[in-house]
Amino acid sequence: MARIVQKYGGTSVGDVERIKKVAERIKFNRDEGNEIVVVVSARAGVTNELIARAKAVTPHPSEREMDMLLSIGEQETIALVAMALHGLGVPAVSYTGGQAGIFTDKVHTRAKIQAINPASIEKDLKAGKVVIVAGFQGVNAEGQITTLGRGGSDLTAIALAAPLKADKCEIYTDVDGVYTADPRVVKTAKKLTEISYDEMLELASSGSKVMQSRSVEFAKKFGVVFEVRSSFNYNPGTIVKEEVAYMEKVVVRGVAVDKDQAKVIVSNILDKPGSAAKVFRALADASIIVDMIVQNVGRNGIANLTFTVPQTDTHKAQKALEPVLDEVGGGQLAIHEGIAKLSVVGVGMKTHSGVAATLFQALADANVNIELITTSEIKISVVIDQAHAETAARAAHAAFQLDQL
Amino acid sequence: MARIVQKYGGTSVGDVERIKKVAERIKFNRDEGNEIVVVVSARAGVTNELIARAKAVTPHPSEREMDMLLSIGEQETIALVAMALHGLGVPAVSYTGGQAGIFTDKVHTRAKIQAINPASIEKDLKAGKVVIVAGFQGVNAEGQITTLGRGGSDLTAIALAAPLKADKCEIYTDVDGVYTADPRVVKTAKKLTEISYDEMLELASSGSKVMQSRSVEFAKKFGVVFEVRSSFNYNPGTIVKEEVAYMEKVVVRGVAVDKDQAKVIVSNILDKPGSAAKVFRALADASIIVDMIVQNVGRNGIANLTFTVPQTDTHKAQKALEPVLDEVGGGQLAIHEGIAKLSVVGVGMKTHSGVAATLFQALADANVNIELITTSEIKISVVIDQAHAETAARAAHAAFQLDQL
Repeated sequence: MARIVQKYGGTSVGDVERIKKVAERIKFNRDEGNEIVVVVSARAGVTNELIARAKAVTPHPSEREMDMLLSIGEQETIALVAMALHGLGVPAVSYTGGQAGIFTDKVHTRAKIQAINPASIEKDLKAGKVVIVAGFQGVNAEGQITTLGRGGSDLTAIALAAPLKADKCEIYTDVDGVYTADPRVVKTAKKLTEISYDEMLELASSGSKVMQSRSVEFAKKFGVVFEVRSSFNYNPGTIVKEEVAYMEKVVVRGVAVDKDQAKVIVSNILDKPGSAAKVFRALADASIIVDMIVQNVGRNGIANLTFTVPQTDTHKAQKALEPVLDEVGGGQLAIHEGIAKLSVVGVGMKTHSGVAATLFQALADANVNIELITTSEIKISVVIDQAHAETAARAAHAAFQLDQL
Repeated sequence: MARIVQKYGGTSVGDVERIKKVAERIKFNRDEGNEIVVVVSARAGVTNELIARAKAVTPHPSEREMDMLLSIGEQETIALVAMALHGLGVPAVSYTGGQAGIFTDKVHTRAKIQAINPASIEKDLKAGKVVIVAGFQGVNAEGQITTLGRGGSDLTAIALAAPLKADKCEIYTDVDGVYTADPRVVKTAKKLTEISYDEMLELASSGSKVMQSRSVEFAKKFGVVFEVRSSFNYNPGTIVKEEVAYMEKVVVRGVAVDKDQAKVIVSNILDKPGSAAKVFRALADASIIVDMIVQNVGRNGIANLTFTVPQTDTHKAQKALEPVLDEVGGGQLAIHEGIAKLSVVGVGMKTHSGVAATLFQALADANVNIELITTSEIKISVVIDQAHAETAARAAHAAFQLDQL
């Protein structure tokens, strides 16, 4: 007998028929003698509908009321999944985030989990029930409903798996697992059997849409091993866990492409202490997340700063930076939106040389120009023209022989 | 400055535009210097949609999960109304039933309110906020979400008005108030300025759809004076309160028609102690509410029992009664669905004679045959052919000169 936490995303519980299928899968797993805790998202589309309704009422709804509103999406699903299980003769009980003992800080729409009290869940598991928990939500010390922000349901599942000492945590989604590249772009992409937290984190921050970094970080911090797999079939997925020795045999584990970035160039600024700080302080004050940063200095003490920001934030970035230009010596600002960031990720890089050279040669052979390069211990990222993103991904995938994994 | 509890029904908050109108009305009342607590229902149609989705998942959803599901309808509305008020610059905060301190017993789908702790509401009112409370719902001692059953939002408003010591309780609906008869049937029907709890109760149990008896009973018990009025205009409505002396000048206050009853006849049963008890025990065990009851005894010790049940329960009644027929001496069962119950209500009946005679004469003049008669202290009800319901209502309305109020 194992204790399993399962998370089903919005597509997996998208309508009544899908909910029934999920219930069948839960029953199947329970009939094998397991204790099951299920975390569900809102039905696909419901959260966007609610946001649209809120915006129709007032253009800038308060975050506290948004949480009150959005939390009903998951509350609907938990009740329907519990009912579907009852229909199959499986004892089940639904829990809101608050009822599940998920306590957060007071920040609305992006609350952080502060503590989990799994006593009620433990009691119902012992009574033989399947426990269905609303993902994405919690309650603060004042009893206010909070939501955890994007990817919140994954986080709920992983955060529950730790105090429940779950043997398995399964993240069900609409893809079969983590691939060496996006299979829609690179036809020869392979599903990975295992991947380390760090690689998964780098892939997540590199545009791979499987999971948000935040949930992976939480899993790494608390040592929660989880599996990413599909709710549409019974194939095994990808297991995400601490780095293990044999993983290092493979240098590169995956290629990711992020087309949602824009490149910002602040040129002709004085190369003196504090210039870069002023630029990035202005962006931080505007809550803009800056990704790749490169600075180069010309011979007459004039520097250029280049970095990427989310494409949705380009207008905000321009507004934030314009007042700073004078302070840093009268620089110029240029924003390029038509870029893509390509990353190759692998823990094996730590001990293998030549990865950068292989990547650059592959891109050169494919006639793809590199505009910007940054590296971390287990990742190399380059900014290229968006029009070449797919060509470049296929070239990199082939160069590291990922299709032969 | 007055403290006002206002309740808006599902039609009043049916869509984004209606919600904005409700917010304007609340702002109008608050700008006059009043403290406002608002109770809202789910948007019209939402509850039925949710029920349909539940039934599509499983034909007999559990009551606990139905409460988990249905409570989201009101939770959506409170958030949207609070947002709409924010949009008008009015400080406002939404509360679920549990957050509002509404504690119920453990019965799901028809919970009874056991206690209200208005401390949080008091605090927010003192802070100058409008407090928006989800109607129809509460929380039990175990922290489970419960719902109060039909008419639950009216009950929430009236139940909150008592501990909050509200100066006014306004029940906003889609009609202008309580009428002497259904204005769609009796064109000359007049809106009543005031009506006593007892009259309102008799009207409610006689098919007038304005409010459920339960809320009126609660108001009577705790002396909560409330006003039934329209959210679609600013006309004064009908004030419901304890009987006052001058009310007695008017003998009959209203005529109500209920077409949702069926007549059940159990004939040829032995007239001995226990026969009727067996019949009504069987119906009670099947949770069927019996309304008018008449028994007559023939000369050879053979009795007939006639009574009415809700039309939706006729099949259940048949199933419940068939096994009992033998036990009561081999009686026969007949069910007539094409009936209507017409009632005239008025506290003045207590001190005036001749009301029954006037009613029966009016019906005779209109060629309406009476099948069954029952009376209470302040009501006379008759069962007639459903085809004559409108004619009979108009005749009774005219006979008691209700159009001249």
